[in-house]
Amino acid sequence: MYKILQLLVSLFAFVVCAPKYSYTVNKFQVPLDHFGFQRNETFSIRYLVNDDNWDQGNGPIFFYTGNEGQIEVFANHTGFMWEIAAQFKAKIVFAEHRYYGESMPFKEKSLKNENIGYLSSAQAMADYADLINYLQENRIKPRYPVIAFGGSYGGMLAAYMRLKYPHIVNGAIAASAPVHMFTGMTNCNIFNRLATSSFKNVNINCSSNIRDSWSVIRNYSSNANGSEWLHSNWKLCSPLKNSTDVASLLDFLNSMYSTLAMVNYPYASDFLMPLPAEPVRYVCQYLEQKLAGEELLKAIGNVLEVYTNYDKRSKCTDYKQGDNYGNLDAAGWDYQACTEMVMPMCSNGNTDMFEPMPWNYTLFAEDCHKKYNVYPRPEMARIEYGGDRLQAASNIVFSNGMKDPWTGGGILDSLSDTIYAEVIPDAAHHLDLMPSNPNDPEPVKMTREMHKEHITRWINQFQEQQSSIRHPHNHM
Amino acid sequence: MYKILQLLVSLFAFVVCAPKYSYTVNKFQVPLDHFGFQRNETFSIRYLVNDDNWDQGNGPIFFYTGNEGQIEVFANHTGFMWEIAAQFKAKIVFAEHRYYGESMPFKEKSLKNENIGYLSSAQAMADYADLINYLQENRIKPRYPVIAFGGSYGGMLAAYMRLKYPHIVNGAIAASAPVHMFTGMTNCNIFNRLATSSFKNVNINCSSNIRDSWSVIRNYSSNANGSEWLHSNWKLCSPLKNSTDVASLLDFLNSMYSTLAMVNYPYASDFLMPLPAEPVRYVCQYLEQKLAGEELLKAIGNVLEVYTNYDKRSKCTDYKQGDNYGNLDAAGWDYQACTEMVMPMCSNGNTDMFEPMPWNYTLFAEDCHKKYNVYPRPEMARIEYGGDRLQAASNIVFSNGMKDPWTGGGILDSLSDTIYAEVIPDAAHHLDLMPSNPNDPEPVKMTREMHKEHITRWINQFQEQQSSIRHPHNHM
Repeated sequence: MYKILQLLVSLFAFVVCAPKYSYTVNKFQVPLDHFGFQRNETFSIRYLVNDDNWDQGNGPIFFYTGNEGQIEVFANHTGFMWEIAAQFKAKIVFAEHRYYGESMPFKEKSLKNENIGYLSSAQAMADYADLINYLQENRIKPRYPVIAFGGSYGGMLAAYMRLKYPHIVNGAIAASAPVHMFTGMTNCNIFNRLATSSFKNVNINCSSNIRDSWSVIRNYSSNANGSEWLHSNWKLCSPLKNSTDVASLLDFLNSMYSTLAMVNYPYASDFLMPLPAEPVRYVCQYLEQKLAGEELLKAIGNVLEVYTNYDKRSKCTDYKQGDNYGNLDAAGWDYQACTEMVMPMCSNGNTDMFEPMPWNYTLFAEDCHKKYNVYPRPEMARIEYGGDRLQAASNIVFSNGMKDPWTGGGILDSLSDTIYAEVIPDAAHHLDLMPSNPNDPEPVKMTREMHKEHITRWINQFQEQQSSIRHPHNHM
Repeated sequence: MYKILQLLVSLFAFVVCAPKYSYTVNKFQVPLDHFGFQRNETFSIRYLVNDDNWDQGNGPIFFYTGNEGQIEVFANHTGFMWEIAAQFKAKIVFAEHRYYGESMPFKEKSLKNENIGYLSSAQAMADYADLINYLQENRIKPRYPVIAFGGSYGGMLAAYMRLKYPHIVNGAIAASAPVHMFTGMTNCNIFNRLATSSFKNVNINCSSNIRDSWSVIRNYSSNANGSEWLHSNWKLCSPLKNSTDVASLLDFLNSMYSTLAMVNYPYASDFLMPLPAEPVRYVCQYLEQKLAGEELLKAIGNVLEVYTNYDKRSKCTDYKQGDNYGNLDAAGWDYQACTEMVMPMCSNGNTDMFEPMPWNYTLFAEDCHKKYNVYPRPEMARIEYGGDRLQAASNIVFSNGMKDPWTGGGILDSLSDTIYAEVIPDAAHHLDLMPSNPNDPEPVKMTREMHKEHITRWINQFQEQQSSIRHPHNHM
């Protein structure tokens, strides 16, 4: 009975959760390198605009700082901006991050090692600053207050825009931004521990079955029969031919559990991939009983089927996509993680349900070097973006859902009178930015009300500064 | 009698104004490109350190953000930092700007077009941020408050460090920083008008003689006899062979008057070149009477002699050095002016004493392109560094001497409760940062006292933040 009800809710949610927002698609020319002049090419980034509600004389610009993926995905899932635009008479802009979607400096060759070096958060933010200047019609004194919005890495960018460009961005809603997920700032285990909690909270057997599954998978994949069993029963797109394939499959599963915890929304959503409401609860139904051997593998196969084929459109499980699986087309992120966004992750198989995997920086760095011919700069994000010192900035809201494993790297305590933390029980990854839904938990609704209050205050602050005439108070 | 007295004062000043500060010379490795990874070379910048007065447990770091020139020149002339170090128990650091002095990424080939592209303020500031992080011993929670100091372009960098790295720099003394000298923000004529005032204020004939001199020089240099007269009487290092040479000579003279106004200090100083006390007054003694023709040229020759040979060590006037003449070895500045630091300058020969020269951006840009194969980015500094919106930052003092033509691009009114303007009558270019001198005008002494108060407050603020334990005040 419960399951039928859940199915009905899910179907209903599919309808209300896929609103079609309308926008124009625009292009904006930016320098390849904002901070030097060795190469002077330019290219175009895309941005989406909706002016339907804009009070062109005074209305604010709501600016989504695009993250790792094509910008439409964020535009279509950041309902909060669309829903409050009328109240604020705001212009809505979604800017696409360079090297993602169609904002490619070197077209289809952009991600090749000889071209990828201009992919960085600093360059992307400088793109956004240039674009906002253009939207302000290149005025010396900007006319429109600008509020930055972003979720996840986009939330980091929204916050960092306010830190680095306080003269351009008046306030930032940074949802689920793991700004503390850098070297020395957070335990490398926290992400996997929190992801495990999501499964364990549904049913302790769910997480322990997953924990047990790794050795069974390794056992099966160590011989031809077992490998073939997995290939056929898990509908793998290609057979497990060698240890690299096995490693890819394990990575894929690892990423699957993390993602299910991240997008553990109270309604069906196709944000990263089509999934039912409360996907962790949903997949844990297969893992309710303590299982072993082939029974356990069959259950994991059911989880895989939900993750990869909930819309029944997929023919097989493309496990070789690793953690790049899903709608985002985030191929460039691996490079960012190998250069500036170095986020140490580890697991121990004890306080978490994953295979034990220490954080080995040396191995990580060598692997990055092999792939991209660069070594990571693990201190870079902290030095450029404040790390533990974000109280030096102002007008930022950091919101974090307690169901989201990224919360482990989030700011959970307000840092000052203008750097606020909003901790949202019952919410997964930046649920507060998603379109409102009848299934939304109360705390998310309250958080959205708080966001509106902050935005109102930032806009008022801007208007006051615009109208105030400064009186000289020099000494002499 | 007055002149003898002045000479005695000058000699005395030479002695007290050339203190020898002691420091260790260090090197620090930085990435060639902080904001991307296309090229992963590193190189070393130099920095000078003095720890004599430092309270190593708690004392602040006084950090001079080096500008266009070898760092020793700034270290030796920024007496203010040295003189207050004991009171604040401060560590003193002078960091050299990349592509100047010995901080050359490509050694002697650094300024070649194929290598110069990593010369930018953003890269230099990222060098400084890395260096400060190193001086904080790479701590997540920095231990020492950091105060940035700088004069002129170095003052801009000090202010911009606070704007862009508020988590790293706790306050900034930005002396004579022309942060408004960018496109659309200030009349292009203001610098030359203020420079003219300095001469006019000594004697109206002084400025009008200079105004009259241009046509006489052009007249002389248009024929062989006249050119030879100038070559020999002005001790030019090379003859005026063509119109390029004549243009160089005129540039050199133009720069001479601007520089004399800038460094119009109340005592002899060898900051940019050895000059007597009140150099504008000094050179105007030759231009007291209304002069014409050869008499006028002889008088200008006397001015040239003061400018180029006050210490009697120079054999001839190397006019081809243009505005790069002097101690700084600022060859890279022309490139910066052609890329990001685009400061429109013009003269009309009417409200100023210079040859009429409109600001022609197109010509300027073409000239830059010819020299460096780059086109300027005239909006870049405004977008990156706040332009007219510096109230978005905090904890900056902008000081400007009213005798300094750069004051025309300075912030003269306080912008907020934490962005202060200090206007200093009777002071030339960042006199407040120079070593104290018996001839200092009272307002400069007062400004230095104000600086100390601001620094004290910023340090206290840092200490309070260090000791405060944040209490969570989340909603739920």
